Amino acid sequence: MAAEQTSKTIEAYPMKGGDGVHSYANNSSYQREVIGSAKRLITEAIAEKLDVDNFVSSYTYRIADLGCSVGPNTFFAVQNIIEALQFKHQRQGLHSQLPEFQVFFNDHMLNDFNTLFSSLPPNREYYAAGVPGSFYSRLFPNASLHFVFCSYSIHWLSKVPKPVVDKSSPAWNKGRIHYPNSNDEVVKAYQAQHTEDMECFLHARAKEVVCGGLVALIILGRPNGMLHSQSLTIGVLESCLMDMARKGIISEEKLDSFNLPLYCMSPQELEAAVDRNGYFSVERIITELGTVPETQSQKISSNFRAAFEGVIMAHFGYEILDELFDSFGKKFEVEFMTKPMSGSSTIFFALLKRKATS
Amino acid sequence: MAAEQTSKTIEAYPMKGGDGVHSYANNSSYQREVIGSAKRLITEAIAEKLDVDNFVSSYTYRIADLGCSVGPNTFFAVQNIIEALQFKHQRQGLHSQLPEFQVFFNDHMLNDFNTLFSSLPPNREYYAAGVPGSFYSRLFPNASLHFVFCSYSIHWLSKVPKPVVDKSSPAWNKGRIHYPNSNDEVVKAYQAQHTEDMECFLHARAKEVVCGGLVALIILGRPNGMLHSQSLTIGVLESCLMDMARKGIISEEKLDSFNLPLYCMSPQELEAAVDRNGYFSVERIITELGTVPETQSQKISSNFRAAFEGVIMAHFGYEILDELFDSFGKKFEVEFMTKPMSGSSTIFFALLKRKATS
Repeated sequence: MAAEQTSKTIEAYPMKGGDGVHSYANNSSYQREVIGSAKRLITEAIAEKLDVDNFVSSYTYRIADLGCSVGPNTFFAVQNIIEALQFKHQRQGLHSQLPEFQVFFNDHMLNDFNTLFSSLPPNREYYAAGVPGSFYSRLFPNASLHFVFCSYSIHWLSKVPKPVVDKSSPAWNKGRIHYPNSNDEVVKAYQAQHTEDMECFLHARAKEVVCGGLVALIILGRPNGMLHSQSLTIGVLESCLMDMARKGIISEEKLDSFNLPLYCMSPQELEAAVDRNGYFSVERIITELGTVPETQSQKISSNFRAAFEGVIMAHFGYEILDELFDSFGKKFEVEFMTKPMSGSSTIFFALLKRKATS
Repeated sequence: MAAEQTSKTIEAYPMKGGDGVHSYANNSSYQREVIGSAKRLITEAIAEKLDVDNFVSSYTYRIADLGCSVGPNTFFAVQNIIEALQFKHQRQGLHSQLPEFQVFFNDHMLNDFNTLFSSLPPNREYYAAGVPGSFYSRLFPNASLHFVFCSYSIHWLSKVPKPVVDKSSPAWNKGRIHYPNSNDEVVKAYQAQHTEDMECFLHARAKEVVCGGLVALIILGRPNGMLHSQSLTIGVLESCLMDMARKGIISEEKLDSFNLPLYCMSPQELEAAVDRNGYFSVERIITELGTVPETQSQKISSNFRAAFEGVIMAHFGYEILDELFDSFGKKFEVEFMTKPMSGSSTIFFALLKRKATS
């Protein structure tokens, strides 16, 4: 257990903490819209798919938000889940005892839990706990969760695939920071890392979720049958980093050794991973949850910084951040005006149910 | 539930966070000695008093450390509890399934959970969670804890008793910062606050602890039959604050409105509170756990700052801290050499067991 929890190979780049101008708390409105779109789906999932009769003997529901960051989105999502559970509890005629809720807010150990805790809703109807650690490892005891939520997080891999930063590998991704425009070997290395990570994720959740419990995922992915394609934001980031390397602000070697630990899976890839794991059924996949609604360049730029500052700082250091995101903002505005947004990334919703076989 | 959890009347002055020179993490060796002294008692409590057969159906033990601060003492205490549980589990012949442990680290919302999480032991054999909030309110779902530990924390009241800072009250504690050398009305106001707080503490724990579960308390208190007496540290702090008021660095009014929310209970007071509550039996009280071993003035001075900086800063502001603790250190050294330490405060251990009646 200890080894599973503290695997040293997992890299942690939490969203920007605190409540400052660049913080995730103040730059995550887009992710909130996504959660809003999934609200009805969550409510339906709980009403129709959750086997409450099996596990409400103590009338305590345990809920986890994996990759919750610092709020406020997580509080919004959790409130929705609790209302749906309360409604179901009433509808089933389980009036005798009011249910209680314990909510586990999970993110990397370096996530800003102090800010998260300070901003907990004062009138919350649940007992709150913070759980530090990667969701690619075990985080909870056996059969202890009834509902797991994970929104806009699982596209972060546990780490950069080793071959893409290995000069001697055919998958060495020289001069690029991501896989979409790279050769097949690079794409395969990312796919292999994703496969391994999904195995860890589902293995851990299969142990932690009670039989009949649900896992709801909101995934930044790509449609079935679609090839991987570079997002505008990452393309612009790559171009800005190249500019800085040309100017000598960062070394070319430093740039070559930088890759983003992100992978956009397709619904089919998710289904294949669930099949291989064997402990869950796919109850629902909704692919029309939304495309990335990149409507205001300034907003995208701020959201992007809040999410990516950590991973960039860990590699290049603190010093380059302001200059990088300043040029990013300017370049993005120009690109955003002139190029149509590529529509290949999509957000989909998936509902998994823990099978009764243990 | 929400109201119980977020009572606005609870004042929070966590121990000094971070890992700096004045941090609690680096200035809590004395509290660690106390935990060390209680180690054998905890082991015996679990071996002899815990009814594991009743609640190990899932083989997950849930443990809480209330008022854990930022470590490392809490990790030391928790490890001891887990080893005792593992030993008991083996001795009972429950070999078929290895038990799992979930540990809830609780402290005020303003406690430095980021530092706590960063310093979690890497090879721990438990799932860790942080729970922000006052232990004078509900923190956990019904019947969800098997072992509650609370060391050197419960002498902190939930707040300063109102009458002692009310000019119109006969309990107004003008010119003093604590009750031991004050008139009877002041002592009574502190006693009343303590009675109310213990009622809240035991009421919450009665709901949270499973029948047969244990609550182990290490309490900075006073012996039965002994009057309250000022500790040397608090006496010196009072004198330093008075000096600052005389010099005009702080106003006299500010000093008059400052009182420490601390109360040293006796074992008899604890037993009376447990009786009034009715849900626990007192299984054991060990009064000889230790007297406050104030052996090195420099160490005491640092420990004192780590523990009291928060409550002083909240009232007087950040600016006075260095000057205050500088003069505190000097004055304490002199007093420490010339005066024998008063021996009226003591540390005692109490073991409560949740009765089977619900």
